[in-house]
Amino acid sequence: MPVTSADDPRLRDYRDLNHSDNRPDLPGGKGLVIAEGPLVVGRLLASRFPVRSIVGFGNRLDEFLADPEMTRMVAAADIPVYEVERRTLAETVGFDMHRGLLAAADRVPGMSVGAAIEGARTIAVLEGVGDHENIGSLFRNAAGLGVDAVLFGAGCADPLYRRVVRVSMGHVLRTPFAHLPGTPTTWQRGLADLRADGFTLLSLTPDPRAVHLADAVTRPDGAPVDRLALLVGAEGPGLSEHAMRATDVRARIPMAPGTDSLNLATAAAVAFYERQRSLR
Amino acid sequence: MPVTSADDPRLRDYRDLNHSDNRPDLPGGKGLVIAEGPLVVGRLLASRFPVRSIVGFGNRLDEFLADPEMTRMVAAADIPVYEVERRTLAETVGFDMHRGLLAAADRVPGMSVGAAIEGARTIAVLEGVGDHENIGSLFRNAAGLGVDAVLFGAGCADPLYRRVVRVSMGHVLRTPFAHLPGTPTTWQRGLADLRADGFTLLSLTPDPRAVHLADAVTRPDGAPVDRLALLVGAEGPGLSEHAMRATDVRARIPMAPGTDSLNLATAAAVAFYERQRSLR
Repeated sequence: MPVTSADDPRLRDYRDLNHSDNRPDLPGGKGLVIAEGPLVVGRLLASRFPVRSIVGFGNRLDEFLADPEMTRMVAAADIPVYEVERRTLAETVGFDMHRGLLAAADRVPGMSVGAAIEGARTIAVLEGVGDHENIGSLFRNAAGLGVDAVLFGAGCADPLYRRVVRVSMGHVLRTPFAHLPGTPTTWQRGLADLRADGFTLLSLTPDPRAVHLADAVTRPDGAPVDRLALLVGAEGPGLSEHAMRATDVRARIPMAPGTDSLNLATAAAVAFYERQRSLR
Repeated sequence: MPVTSADDPRLRDYRDLNHSDNRPDLPGGKGLVIAEGPLVVGRLLASRFPVRSIVGFGNRLDEFLADPEMTRMVAAADIPVYEVERRTLAETVGFDMHRGLLAAADRVPGMSVGAAIEGARTIAVLEGVGDHENIGSLFRNAAGLGVDAVLFGAGCADPLYRRVVRVSMGHVLRTPFAHLPGTPTTWQRGLADLRADGFTLLSLTPDPRAVHLADAVTRPDGAPVDRLALLVGAEGPGLSEHAMRATDVRARIPMAPGTDSLNLATAAAVAFYERQRSLR
Protein backbone atom coordinates (compact mmCIF):
# COMPACT_ATOMS: atom_id res chain seq x y z
CA MET A 1 0.00 0.00 0.00
CA PRO A 2 1.37 3.45 -0.91
CA VAL A 3 2.64 5.75 1.84
CA THR A 4 3.31 9.28 0.70
CA SER A 5 4.58 11.16 3.75
CA ALA A 6 7.78 10.60 5.71
CA ASP A 7 5.81 11.59 8.81
CA ASP A 8 3.43 8.67 8.38
CA PRO A 9 3.58 6.56 11.57
CA ARG A 10 3.79 3.39 9.45
CA LEU A 11 7.31 4.47 8.45
CA ARG A 12 8.39 5.09 12.05
CA ASP A 13 10.63 1.97 12.21
CA TYR A 14 12.75 3.37 9.38
CA ARG A 15 13.19 6.91 10.67
CA ASP A 16 16.71 8.35 10.90
CA LEU A 17 18.34 4.97 10.23
CA ASN A 18 21.89 6.14 10.89
CA HIS A 19 20.91 6.76 14.50
CA SER A 20 18.29 4.07 14.91
CA ASP A 21 20.38 1.69 17.00
CA ASN A 22 19.32 3.41 20.18
CA ARG A 23 15.63 2.89 20.91
CA PRO A 24 14.92 3.55 24.60
CA ASP A 25 11.25 2.83 23.87
CA LEU A 26 11.98 -0.79 22.90
CA PRO A 27 12.88 -3.72 25.19
CA GLY A 28 16.61 -3.58 25.97
CA GLY A 29 16.87 -0.10 24.46
CA LYS A 30 18.28 -1.48 21.23
CA GLY A 31 17.13 -0.84 17.70
CA LEU A 32 15.11 -3.13 15.51
CA VAL A 33 16.70 -5.60 13.12
CA ILE A 34 16.96 -3.79 9.77
CA ALA A 35 17.56 -5.56 6.46
CA GLU A 36 18.53 -3.74 3.27
CA GLY A 37 18.26 -5.03 -0.29
CA PRO A 38 16.43 -8.06 -1.69
CA LEU A 39 18.99 -10.71 -0.68
CA VAL A 40 19.11 -9.68 2.97
CA VAL A 41 15.38 -8.90 3.22
CA GLY A 42 14.73 -12.42 1.94
CA ARG A 43 17.05 -13.86 4.57
CA LEU A 44 15.31 -11.82 7.27
CA LEU A 45 11.93 -13.21 6.17
CA ALA A 46 13.28 -16.75 6.46
CA SER A 47 14.89 -16.07 9.88
CA ARG A 48 13.68 -16.39 13.45
CA PHE A 49 13.10 -12.61 13.69
CA PRO A 50 9.45 -11.56 13.27
CA VAL A 51 9.23 -9.07 10.42
CA ARG A 52 7.14 -5.96 11.22
CA SER A 53 6.97 -4.48 7.73
CA ILE A 54 8.64 -4.16 4.34
CA VAL A 55 9.15 -0.80 2.62
CA GLY A 56 10.31 -0.15 -0.91
CA PHE A 57 10.03 1.61 -4.22
CA GLY A 58 7.24 0.22 -6.39
CA ASN A 59 9.54 -1.44 -8.92
CA ARG A 60 11.76 -2.94 -6.22
CA LEU A 61 8.77 -4.40 -4.40
CA ASP A 62 7.45 -5.85 -7.67
CA GLU A 63 10.80 -7.49 -8.40
CA PHE A 64 11.07 -8.83 -4.86
CA LEU A 65 7.55 -10.23 -4.74
CA ALA A 66 7.92 -11.79 -8.19
CA ASP A 67 9.66 -14.60 -6.29
CA PRO A 68 6.75 -16.82 -5.19
CA GLU A 69 8.63 -17.92 -2.05
CA MET A 70 8.86 -14.30 -0.91
CA THR A 71 5.19 -13.67 -1.63
CA ARG A 72 4.31 -16.82 0.29
CA MET A 73 6.32 -15.80 3.37
CA VAL A 74 4.91 -12.26 3.33
CA ALA A 75 1.36 -13.59 3.10
CA ALA A 76 1.87 -16.33 5.69
CA ALA A 77 3.04 -13.86 8.33
CA ASP A 78 0.61 -11.15 7.18
CA ILE A 79 3.44 -8.62 6.85
CA PRO A 80 2.44 -5.10 5.79
CA VAL A 81 4.21 -3.89 2.64
CA TYR A 82 4.49 -0.14 2.11
CA GLU A 83 5.26 1.39 -1.24
CA VAL A 84 7.15 4.68 -1.09
CA GLU A 85 8.75 7.06 -3.54
CA ARG A 86 12.50 7.57 -3.49
CA ARG A 87 12.15 11.05 -2.02
CA THR A 88 9.84 9.90 0.77
CA LEU A 89 12.21 7.08 1.71
CA ALA A 90 15.23 9.39 1.68
CA GLU A 91 13.39 11.85 3.91
CA THR A 92 12.44 9.03 6.28
CA VAL A 93 15.77 7.24 6.65
CA GLY A 94 17.89 10.39 6.41
CA PHE A 95 19.91 9.55 3.30
CA ASP A 96 19.36 8.36 -0.25
CA MET A 97 18.61 4.66 0.06
CA HIS A 98 19.27 3.74 -3.56
CA ARG A 99 18.60 0.03 -3.09
CA GLY A 100 14.98 0.93 -2.39
CA LEU A 101 14.01 -2.11 -0.34
CA LEU A 102 14.05 -2.43 3.45
CA ALA A 103 12.49 -4.53 6.16
CA ALA A 104 12.31 -4.18 9.93
CA ALA A 105 11.95 -7.00 12.44
CA ASP A 106 11.70 -7.32 16.19
CA ARG A 107 14.59 -8.66 18.18
CA VAL A 108 13.94 -11.95 19.94
CA PRO A 109 15.39 -13.22 23.22
CA GLY A 110 19.00 -14.33 22.80
CA MET A 111 19.71 -18.01 22.21
CA SER A 112 21.30 -20.02 24.99
CA VAL A 113 24.84 -21.25 24.42
CA GLY A 114 23.55 -24.81 24.55
CA ALA A 115 20.97 -24.19 21.85
CA ALA A 116 23.45 -22.35 19.62
CA ILE A 117 26.07 -25.11 19.66
CA GLU A 118 23.69 -28.07 19.52
CA GLY A 119 25.03 -30.47 16.91
CA ALA A 120 27.75 -27.98 15.89
CA ARG A 121 31.06 -29.38 14.76
CA THR A 122 32.88 -26.08 14.23
CA ILE A 123 32.23 -22.87 16.12
CA ALA A 124 33.90 -19.47 16.40
CA VAL A 125 34.33 -17.68 19.74
CA LEU A 126 35.02 -13.93 19.69
CA GLU A 127 36.54 -11.74 22.38
CA GLY A 128 36.75 -7.95 22.38
CA VAL A 129 35.60 -7.49 18.80
CA GLY A 130 34.05 -4.03 18.91
CA ASP A 131 34.04 -3.32 15.19
CA HIS A 132 30.72 -3.89 13.42
CA GLU A 133 32.27 -4.41 10.02
CA ASN A 134 34.59 -7.09 11.37
CA ILE A 135 31.70 -8.93 13.01
CA GLY A 136 29.70 -8.74 9.80
CA SER A 137 32.60 -10.03 7.69
CA LEU A 138 33.23 -12.80 10.18
CA PHE A 139 29.63 -14.02 9.94
CA ARG A 140 29.82 -13.94 6.14
CA ASN A 141 33.03 -15.96 6.19
CA ALA A 142 31.71 -18.34 8.85
CA ALA A 143 28.62 -19.13 6.81
CA GLY A 144 30.55 -19.62 3.58
CA LEU A 145 33.18 -21.82 5.16
CA GLY A 146 30.95 -24.13 7.15
CA VAL A 147 31.09 -22.74 10.69
CA ASP A 148 27.97 -23.83 12.57
CA ALA A 149 27.69 -21.20 15.33
CA VAL A 150 29.33 -18.10 16.77
CA LEU A 151 29.76 -17.39 20.49
CA PHE A 152 30.55 -14.00 21.97
CA GLY A 153 32.85 -13.52 24.93
CA ALA A 154 33.19 -10.14 26.60
CA GLY A 155 33.68 -6.83 24.83
CA CYS A 156 32.00 -7.49 21.51
CA ALA A 157 29.71 -5.14 19.62
CA ASP A 158 26.02 -5.85 18.99
CA PRO A 159 25.75 -8.46 16.21
CA LEU A 160 22.29 -7.23 15.21
CA TYR A 161 23.41 -3.69 14.49
CA ARG A 162 22.31 -2.60 11.03
CA ARG A 163 25.82 -2.49 9.58
CA VAL A 164 26.61 -6.01 10.80
CA VAL A 165 23.46 -7.32 9.13
CA ARG A 166 24.45 -5.65 5.86
CA VAL A 167 28.15 -6.63 5.83
CA SER A 168 27.29 -10.21 6.83
CA MET A 169 24.94 -10.32 3.82
CA GLY A 170 22.25 -11.41 6.25
CA HIS A 171 24.13 -14.44 7.55
CA VAL A 172 24.02 -13.08 11.11
CA LEU A 173 20.26 -13.71 10.84
CA ARG A 174 20.82 -17.38 9.94
CA THR A 175 23.91 -18.61 11.78
CA PRO A 176 23.09 -19.39 15.45
CA PHE A 177 24.91 -17.17 17.94
CA ALA A 178 24.90 -16.71 21.71
CA HIS A 179 26.70 -14.76 24.41
CA LEU A 180 28.86 -16.49 27.01
CA PRO A 181 27.89 -15.05 30.36
CA GLY A 182 30.31 -13.11 32.56
CA THR A 183 32.65 -10.16 32.67
CA PRO A 184 35.92 -9.56 30.80
CA THR A 185 37.69 -11.69 33.40
CA THR A 186 35.05 -14.36 34.05
CA TRP A 187 33.50 -15.21 30.67
CA GLN A 188 36.38 -17.60 29.99
CA ARG A 189 34.83 -20.03 32.51
CA GLY A 190 32.30 -20.90 29.83
CA LEU A 191 35.15 -22.34 27.79
CA ALA A 192 35.45 -25.21 30.26
CA ASP A 193 31.85 -26.12 29.47
CA LEU A 194 32.70 -26.23 25.79
CA ARG A 195 35.55 -28.58 26.51
CA ALA A 196 33.19 -30.76 28.56
CA ASP A 197 30.96 -30.84 25.49
CA GLY A 198 33.82 -32.35 23.50
CA PHE A 199 35.23 -29.23 21.87
CA THR A 200 38.94 -28.77 21.30
CA LEU A 201 39.69 -25.09 21.91
CA LEU A 202 42.09 -23.30 19.55
CA SER A 203 43.39 -19.74 20.07
CA LEU A 204 44.34 -17.84 16.94
CA THR A 205 47.36 -15.62 17.64
CA PRO A 206 50.14 -13.93 15.65
CA ASP A 207 52.64 -15.16 18.27
CA PRO A 208 55.51 -16.78 16.30
CA ARG A 209 55.96 -19.37 19.09
CA ALA A 210 52.47 -20.76 18.40
CA VAL A 211 52.09 -23.88 16.25
CA HIS A 212 51.25 -23.68 12.55
CA LEU A 213 47.49 -23.55 12.07
CA ALA A 214 47.64 -26.63 9.83
CA ASP A 215 49.09 -28.68 12.70
CA ALA A 216 46.62 -27.33 15.26
CA VAL A 217 43.38 -28.57 13.69
CA THR A 218 44.37 -32.23 13.63
CA ARG A 219 45.19 -34.78 16.28
CA PRO A 220 48.72 -36.21 16.52
CA ASP A 221 47.64 -39.10 14.27
CA GLY A 222 46.57 -36.63 11.57
CA ALA A 223 42.82 -37.12 12.01
CA PRO A 224 40.74 -33.97 12.38
CA VAL A 225 39.53 -33.09 15.87
CA ASP A 226 35.89 -33.95 16.32
CA ARG A 227 34.48 -30.66 17.59
CA LEU A 228 36.53 -27.49 17.19
CA ALA A 229 36.10 -24.03 18.75
CA LEU A 230 38.20 -21.34 17.06
CA LEU A 231 38.87 -18.36 19.33
CA VAL A 232 39.56 -15.01 17.71
CA GLY A 233 40.41 -11.70 19.39
CA ALA A 234 40.33 -8.11 18.20
CA GLU A 235 42.85 -6.76 15.71
CA GLY A 236 45.64 -5.19 17.70
CA PRO A 237 45.23 -6.57 21.22
CA GLY A 238 44.23 -10.07 20.07
CA LEU A 239 42.90 -12.58 22.57
CA SER A 240 43.50 -11.97 26.27
CA GLU A 241 46.12 -14.16 27.92
CA HIS A 242 43.32 -15.23 30.24
CA ALA A 243 41.32 -16.62 27.31
CA MET A 244 44.30 -18.23 25.60
CA ARG A 245 45.25 -19.99 28.80
CA ALA A 246 41.84 -21.67 28.83
CA THR A 247 42.38 -23.17 25.37
CA ASP A 248 44.11 -26.37 24.24
CA VAL A 249 46.38 -24.98 21.57
CA ARG A 250 47.67 -21.65 20.29
CA ALA A 251 47.86 -21.52 16.51
CA ARG A 252 49.37 -19.00 14.14
CA ILE A 253 48.99 -18.14 10.49
CA PRO A 254 52.62 -17.65 9.46
CA MET A 255 53.26 -14.05 8.44
CA ALA A 256 55.99 -12.71 6.18
CA PRO A 257 58.73 -10.78 8.03
CA GLY A 258 58.04 -7.06 8.45
CA THR A 259 54.30 -7.35 7.95
CA ASP A 260 51.36 -6.81 10.25
CA SER A 261 48.81 -9.39 11.31
CA LEU A 262 45.84 -9.98 9.04
CA ASN A 263 42.47 -8.32 9.51
CA LEU A 264 40.63 -10.45 12.07
CA ALA A 265 37.82 -11.55 9.76
CA THR A 266 40.43 -12.52 7.16
CA ALA A 267 42.49 -14.46 9.70
CA ALA A 268 39.31 -16.18 10.85
CA ALA A 269 38.46 -17.09 7.24
CA VAL A 270 41.84 -18.74 6.83
CA ALA A 271 41.27 -20.73 10.03
CA PHE A 272 37.74 -21.73 8.94
CA TYR A 273 39.18 -22.85 5.59
CA GLU A 274 41.88 -24.92 7.28
CA ARG A 275 39.26 -26.55 9.47
CA GLN A 276 37.08 -27.46 6.47
CA ARG A 277 40.17 -28.68 4.65
CA SER A 278 40.98 -31.06 7.54
CA LEU A 279 37.46 -32.54 7.34
CA ARG A 280 37.43 -33.30 3.63
CA MET B 1 58.51 24.71 10.06
CA PRO B 2 55.07 26.05 11.08
CA VAL B 3 52.49 26.83 8.40
CA THR B 4 49.49 28.74 9.67
CA SER B 5 47.20 29.24 6.68
CA ALA B 6 45.37 26.64 4.63
CA ASP B 7 45.97 28.87 1.61
CA ASP B 8 49.73 28.56 1.98
CA PRO B 9 51.12 27.15 -1.29
CA ARG B 10 53.28 24.72 0.68
CA LEU B 11 50.07 22.86 1.63
CA ARG B 12 48.84 22.68 -1.95
CA ASP B 13 49.54 18.92 -2.29
CA TYR B 14 47.10 18.24 0.55
CA ARG B 15 44.22 20.41 -0.58
CA ASP B 16 40.74 18.88 -0.82
CA LEU B 17 42.07 15.34 -0.34
CA ASN B 18 38.76 13.64 -1.02
CA HIS B 19 38.94 14.95 -4.59
CA SER B 20 42.68 14.97 -5.05
CA ASP B 21 42.92 11.93 -7.28
CA ASN B 22 42.36 14.03 -10.37
CA ARG B 23 45.28 16.36 -11.05
CA PRO B 24 45.25 17.50 -14.68
CA ASP B 25 48.33 19.61 -13.90
CA LEU B 26 50.44 16.53 -13.10
CA PRO B 27 51.89 13.95 -15.53
CA GLY B 28 49.20 11.38 -16.37
CA GLY B 29 46.53 13.55 -14.73
CA LYS B 30 46.58 11.43 -11.60
CA GLY B 31 47.00 12.56 -8.03
CA LEU B 32 50.08 12.32 -5.89
CA VAL B 33 50.79 9.37 -3.63
CA ILE B 34 49.35 10.28 -0.22
CA ALA B 35 50.28 8.48 3.00
CA GLU B 36 48.33 8.89 6.25
CA GLY B 37 49.51 8.05 9.75
CA PRO B 38 53.00 7.21 11.05
CA LEU B 39 53.12 3.57 9.88
CA VAL B 40 52.23 4.37 6.27
CA VAL B 41 54.25 7.60 6.13
CA GLY B 42 57.26 5.59 7.28
CA ARG B 43 56.65 3.04 4.54
CA LEU B 44 56.33 5.82 1.96
CA LEU B 45 59.69 7.26 3.07
CA ALA B 46 61.30 3.84 2.60
CA SER B 47 59.65 3.30 -0.80
CA ARG B 48 60.65 4.11 -4.38
CA PHE B 49 58.33 7.14 -4.44
CA PRO B 50 60.12 10.48 -3.91
CA VAL B 51 58.50 12.24 -0.95
CA ARG B 52 57.70 15.92 -1.57
CA SER B 53 56.80 16.92 1.99
CA ILE B 54 55.48 15.78 5.35
CA VAL B 55 52.72 17.65 7.21
CA GLY B 56 51.50 17.12 10.74
CA PHE B 57 50.47 18.38 14.13
CA GLY B 58 53.44 19.36 16.31
CA ASN B 59 53.10 16.43 18.70
CA ARG B 60 52.59 13.91 15.90
CA LEU B 61 55.68 15.16 14.09
CA ASP B 62 57.70 14.97 17.32
CA GLU B 63 56.59 11.37 17.89
CA PHE B 64 57.30 10.42 14.30
CA LEU B 65 60.76 12.00 14.20
CA ALA B 66 61.68 10.51 17.56
CA ASP B 67 62.47 7.39 15.51
CA PRO B 68 66.07 8.01 14.39
CA GLU B 69 65.52 6.02 11.18
CA MET B 70 62.73 8.41 10.17
CA THR B 71 64.82 11.47 10.99
CA ARG B 72 67.66 10.01 8.96
CA MET B 73 65.49 9.40 5.88
CA VAL B 74 63.92 12.86 6.10
CA ALA B 75 67.34 14.50 6.35
CA ALA B 76 68.91 12.34 3.64
CA ALA B 77 66.28 13.32 1.08
CA ASP B 78 66.03 16.89 2.39
CA ILE B 79 62.25 16.59 2.77
CA PRO B 80 60.43 19.68 4.00
CA VAL B 81 58.37 19.12 7.17
CA TYR B 82 55.46 21.46 7.85
CA GLU B 83 53.87 21.82 11.25
CA VAL B 84 50.19 22.73 11.19
CA GLU B 85 47.40 23.09 13.71
CA ARG B 86 44.44 20.75 13.59
CA ARG B 87 42.14 23.49 12.26
CA THR B 88 44.54 24.46 9.48
CA LEU B 89 44.92 20.84 8.38
CA ALA B 90 41.15 20.26 8.46
CA GLU B 91 40.62 23.38 6.36
CA THR B 92 43.29 22.24 3.89
CA VAL B 93 42.27 18.61 3.39
CA GLY B 94 38.53 19.25 3.72
CA PHE B 95 37.77 17.07 6.76
CA ASP B 96 39.08 16.48 10.26
CA MET B 97 42.27 14.48 9.81
CA HIS B 98 42.55 13.22 13.37
CA ARG B 99 45.68 11.16 12.77
CA GLY B 100 47.51 14.42 12.17
CA LEU B 101 50.34 13.13 10.00
CA LEU B 102 50.50 13.04 6.21
CA ALA B 103 53.04 12.83 3.45
CA ALA B 104 52.85 13.36 -0.31
CA ALA B 105 55.10 11.80 -2.93
CA ASP B 106 55.44 11.92 -6.69
CA ARG B 107 54.38 8.98 -8.78
CA VAL B 108 57.16 7.25 -10.65
CA PRO B 109 57.02 5.47 -14.02
CA GLY B 110 55.33 2.07 -13.73
CA MET B 111 57.50 -1.00 -13.30
CA SER B 112 57.80 -3.43 -16.21
CA VAL B 113 56.24 -6.85 -15.76
CA GLY B 114 59.70 -8.39 -16.02
CA ALA B 115 61.08 -6.21 -13.24
CA ALA B 116 58.06 -6.84 -10.98
CA ILE B 117 58.24 -10.63 -11.19
CA GLU B 118 62.04 -10.96 -11.14
CA GLY B 119 62.87 -13.69 -8.64
CA ALA B 120 59.22 -13.99 -7.59
CA ARG B 121 57.93 -17.39 -6.58
CA THR B 122 54.32 -16.44 -5.94
CA ILE B 123 52.41 -13.67 -7.70
CA ALA B 124 48.79 -12.51 -7.85
CA VAL B 125 47.15 -11.43 -11.12
CA LEU B 126 43.98 -9.32 -10.92
CA GLU B 127 41.30 -8.80 -13.55
CA GLY B 128 38.43 -6.31 -13.39
CA VAL B 129 38.95 -5.32 -9.77
CA GLY B 130 37.55 -1.81 -9.70
CA ASP B 131 37.10 -1.46 -5.96
CA HIS B 132 39.84 0.46 -4.15
CA GLU B 133 39.19 -1.17 -0.80
CA ASN B 134 39.49 -4.66 -2.31
CA ILE B 135 42.79 -3.76 -3.99
CA GLY B 136 44.10 -2.33 -0.72
CA SER B 137 43.06 -5.40 1.28
CA LEU B 138 44.56 -7.67 -1.35
CA PHE B 139 47.95 -5.93 -1.09
CA ARG B 140 47.82 -6.17 2.69
CA ASN B 141 47.05 -9.90 2.50
CA ALA B 142 49.63 -10.47 -0.24
CA ALA B 143 52.39 -8.86 1.83
CA GLY B 144 51.46 -10.73 4.99
CA LEU B 145 51.19 -14.10 3.28
CA GLY B 146 54.36 -13.99 1.23
CA VAL B 147 53.19 -12.98 -2.25
CA ASP B 148 56.11 -11.40 -4.09
CA ALA B 149 54.38 -9.27 -6.74
CA VAL B 150 50.98 -8.24 -8.08
CA LEU B 151 50.11 -7.90 -11.77
CA PHE B 152 47.09 -6.05 -13.13
CA GLY B 153 45.10 -7.26 -16.11
CA ALA B 154 42.40 -5.07 -17.63
CA GLY B 155 39.71 -3.22 -15.74
CA CYS B 156 41.40 -2.60 -12.41
CA ALA B 157 41.33 0.59 -10.38
CA ASP B 158 44.40 2.72 -9.70
CA PRO B 159 46.52 0.99 -7.04
CA LEU B 160 48.06 4.30 -5.93
CA TYR B 161 44.74 5.91 -5.07
CA ARG B 162 44.77 7.31 -1.54
CA ARG B 163 42.29 4.79 -0.16
CA VAL B 164 44.25 1.83 -1.54
CA VAL B 165 47.41 3.12 0.12
CA ARG B 166 45.57 3.42 3.45
CA VAL B 167 43.72 0.07 3.36
CA SER B 168 46.88 -1.74 2.22
CA MET B 169 48.65 -0.26 5.27
CA GLY B 170 51.26 1.05 2.85
CA HIS B 171 52.09 -2.36 1.39
CA VAL B 172 51.15 -1.19 -2.10
CA LEU B 173 54.21 1.09 -1.80
CA ARG B 174 56.47 -1.91 -1.06
CA THR B 175 55.19 -4.90 -3.01
CA PRO B 176 56.26 -4.70 -6.68
CA PHE B 177 53.36 -4.36 -9.11
CA ALA B 178 52.97 -3.87 -12.86
CA HIS B 179 50.27 -3.70 -15.52
CA LEU B 180 49.97 -6.35 -18.21
CA PRO B 181 49.56 -4.49 -21.49
CA GLY B 182 46.45 -4.80 -23.64
CA THR B 183 42.70 -4.43 -23.68
CA PRO B 184 40.02 -6.44 -21.85
CA THR B 185 40.28 -9.08 -24.58
CA THR B 186 44.02 -9.01 -25.30
CA TRP B 187 45.77 -8.63 -21.92
CA GLN B 188 45.52 -12.39 -21.40
CA ARG B 189 48.29 -12.85 -23.98
CA GLY B 190 50.72 -11.75 -21.29
CA LEU B 191 49.79 -14.89 -19.37
CA ALA B 192 51.62 -16.99 -21.98
CA ASP B 193 54.79 -15.05 -21.17
CA LEU B 194 54.34 -15.90 -17.50
CA ARG B 195 54.06 -19.57 -18.37
CA ALA B 196 57.22 -19.28 -20.47
CA ASP B 197 58.88 -17.86 -17.36
CA GLY B 198 58.00 -21.05 -15.48
CA PHE B 199 54.80 -19.98 -13.76
CA THR B 200 51.91 -22.36 -13.23
CA LEU B 201 48.72 -20.32 -13.70
CA LEU B 202 45.82 -20.92 -11.33
CA SER B 203 42.35 -19.36 -11.70
CA LEU B 204 40.37 -18.87 -8.52
CA THR B 205 36.67 -19.50 -9.19
CA PRO B 206 33.57 -20.40 -7.18
CA ASP B 207 32.67 -22.94 -9.89
CA PRO B 208 31.88 -26.22 -8.05
CA ARG B 209 33.38 -28.20 -10.95
CA ALA B 210 36.81 -26.69 -10.25
CA VAL B 211 39.36 -28.66 -8.24
CA HIS B 212 39.87 -28.07 -4.52
CA LEU B 213 42.39 -25.31 -3.96
CA ALA B 214 44.56 -27.65 -1.86
CA ASP B 215 44.97 -29.97 -4.84
CA ALA B 216 45.66 -27.16 -7.28
CA VAL B 217 48.83 -25.75 -5.72
CA THR B 218 50.78 -29.00 -5.83
CA ARG B 219 52.02 -31.24 -8.60
CA PRO B 220 50.61 -34.76 -8.98
CA ASP B 221 53.48 -36.08 -6.82
CA GLY B 222 52.48 -33.72 -4.00
CA ALA B 223 55.42 -31.34 -4.38
CA PRO B 224 54.57 -27.64 -4.58
CA VAL B 225 54.73 -26.01 -8.00
CA ASP B 226 57.87 -23.96 -8.42
CA ARG B 227 56.43 -20.61 -9.52
CA LEU B 228 52.74 -19.92 -9.04
CA ALA B 229 50.52 -17.16 -10.43
CA LEU B 230 47.15 -16.88 -8.67
CA LEU B 231 44.50 -15.19 -10.82
CA VAL B 232 41.64 -13.43 -9.08
CA GLY B 233 38.63 -11.67 -10.64
CA ALA B 234 36.13 -9.18 -9.29
CA GLU B 235 33.46 -10.18 -6.79
CA GLY B 236 30.36 -11.00 -8.77
CA PRO B 237 31.58 -11.51 -12.33
CA GLY B 238 34.81 -13.27 -11.32
CA LEU B 239 37.48 -13.95 -13.91
CA SER B 240 36.56 -13.79 -17.57
CA GLU B 241 36.32 -17.13 -19.37
CA HIS B 242 38.98 -15.73 -21.68
CA ALA B 243 41.41 -15.39 -18.78
CA MET B 244 40.54 -18.73 -17.19
CA ARG B 245 41.09 -20.51 -20.48
CA ALA B 246 44.66 -19.19 -20.51
CA THR B 247 45.43 -20.80 -17.14
CA ASP B 248 46.55 -24.29 -16.18
CA VAL B 249 44.03 -25.09 -13.49
CA ARG B 250 40.74 -23.76 -12.10
CA ALA B 251 40.59 -23.97 -8.33
CA ARG B 252 37.77 -23.42 -5.87
CA ILE B 253 37.49 -22.71 -2.19
CA PRO B 254 34.64 -25.04 -1.19
CA MET B 255 31.61 -23.03 -0.03
CA ALA B 256 28.80 -24.19 2.23
CA PRO B 257 25.46 -24.73 0.42
CA GLY B 258 23.26 -21.65 0.18
CA THR B 259 26.07 -19.17 0.74
CA ASP B 260 27.68 -16.58 -1.48
CA SER B 261 31.28 -16.50 -2.62
CA LEU B 262 33.82 -14.86 -0.31
CA ASN B 263 34.95 -11.27 -0.66
CA LEU B 264 37.71 -11.31 -3.27
CA ALA B 265 40.48 -10.14 -0.96
CA THR B 266 39.42 -12.80 1.55
CA ALA B 267 39.35 -15.51 -1.12
CA ALA B 268 42.77 -14.37 -2.28
CA ALA B 269 44.08 -14.53 1.31
CA VAL B 270 42.92 -18.14 1.59
CA ALA B 271 44.70 -18.96 -1.68
CA PHE B 272 47.88 -17.17 -0.56
CA TYR B 273 47.75 -19.12 2.70
CA GLU B 274 47.34 -22.43 0.87
CA ARG B 275 50.31 -21.58 -1.33
CA GLN B 276 52.52 -20.76 1.66
CA ARG B 277 51.29 -23.91 3.36
CA SER B 278 52.40 -26.01 0.37
CA LEU B 279 55.90 -24.51 0.56
CA ARG B 280 56.55 -25.16 4.24
